[in-house]
Amino acid sequence: MNESPGVVDLLGVLAYAELSAFARMTEDAASLAPSLADQAALSELAVAEYAHFRLLHDRLTELGADPERAMSPFVEALDAWHTQTAPADWLQALVKAYVGVGIALDFYREAASHLEPSIAKLVDEVLVDEGRSEFVVERVRAGVAADPALSGRLALWARRLVGEALSQGQQVAAARPELALLVVGSAAEDQTQISRLFAKLTEEHGKRMAALGL
Amino acid sequence: MNESPGVVDLLGVLAYAELSAFARMTEDAASLAPSLADQAALSELAVAEYAHFRLLHDRLTELGADPERAMSPFVEALDAWHTQTAPADWLQALVKAYVGVGIALDFYREAASHLEPSIAKLVDEVLVDEGRSEFVVERVRAGVAADPALSGRLALWARRLVGEALSQGQQVAAARPELALLVVGSAAEDQTQISRLFAKLTEEHGKRMAALGL
Repeated sequence: MNESPGVVDLLGVLAYAELSAFARMTEDAASLAPSLADQAALSELAVAEYAHFRLLHDRLTELGADPERAMSPFVEALDAWHTQTAPADWLQALVKAYVGVGIALDFYREAASHLEPSIAKLVDEVLVDEGRSEFVVERVRAGVAADPALSGRLALWARRLVGEALSQGQQVAAARPELALLVVGSAAEDQTQISRLFAKLTEEHGKRMAALGL
Repeated sequence: MNESPGVVDLLGVLAYAELSAFARMTEDAASLAPSLADQAALSELAVAEYAHFRLLHDRLTELGADPERAMSPFVEALDAWHTQTAPADWLQALVKAYVGVGIALDFYREAASHLEPSIAKLVDEVLVDEGRSEFVVERVRAGVAADPALSGRLALWARRLVGEALSQGQQVAAARPELALLVVGSAAEDQTQISRLFAKLTEEHGKRMAALGL
């Protein structure tokens, strides 16, 4: 295995992020969707996450890594995020899916800019699915139009989602310096670089909130 | 729409069977799997169920039917089956997946023998995935080898799974005579034909139990 030391970590954290997103979205779709059509729409998004998981899993195997071992250091942080952000209703579930997928795609994009071509290609394959969660925008906007009081409540919810994500992310970065290094692409001043990355993720999040009308 | 009157019912019941199996297997995988590799293996099976759901959904749309309306008469019976058969542990979840997928495939096969070619083709596409659940056989056999006392308990569990399925199936058949007619392929003596079909499903189930070593 001739990869940078953080590559297995990077593929591992993304793989478990996708696997856990798949499971939680599927569960939210089954338990919170107001109709079978809505359940199917969110399930469709969940299955796309599973396809990303499979790409990452296969890439790990090709690199000679054990996918399970690569994922396990990140199970606790990602499970904690999901536990802290269990949606209470359908619109919260949709906002969570949109915000979660959005942060993950930002993270892929950021990581891709510092990576060897073989991984960058995988990132391209994942980014093809950008736009899949656009149905969420339409449904959240319709929900808020029908009940404008929801807007503030969902905006608060979205802030909580991203806040908990950054908090878990900071802990992961501190525990896995090689991963952090790989994602921010700089050996020196990595805390500053991490702060810069987080600022960028926050900025992209703001754009997504605007798209949702929140 | 020039199809037999039961065709939309048939596609509808199969579509919801696949969508609900997808959701429950994914949930069982996330909550009961003893390792990430096991979670991924059962999730893989769940995603294959989702692909079948999509085929059935698209076929319904092509026929000019509303997939949601086609599925809704069967939600109660299938949800009741899942509620009555919520697995308590990982081996129960595996046996449920194997038995459930097996019964569904028997049902596809049986229905296909009485259907117009366009539906038979869809059934062929679904049956390509036969064999996917073979990993279950290996894991259940290993589990029973490690603890032979599990054998009787799992055999009882499997009987309950199939018993509850036949009971729900009988109610559905009584409520939807055109569907029953289509599946058994006979206008006369349909109660006898339904009994014959159920006897056949029970026989196939017995073969699956033998494969599992139960």
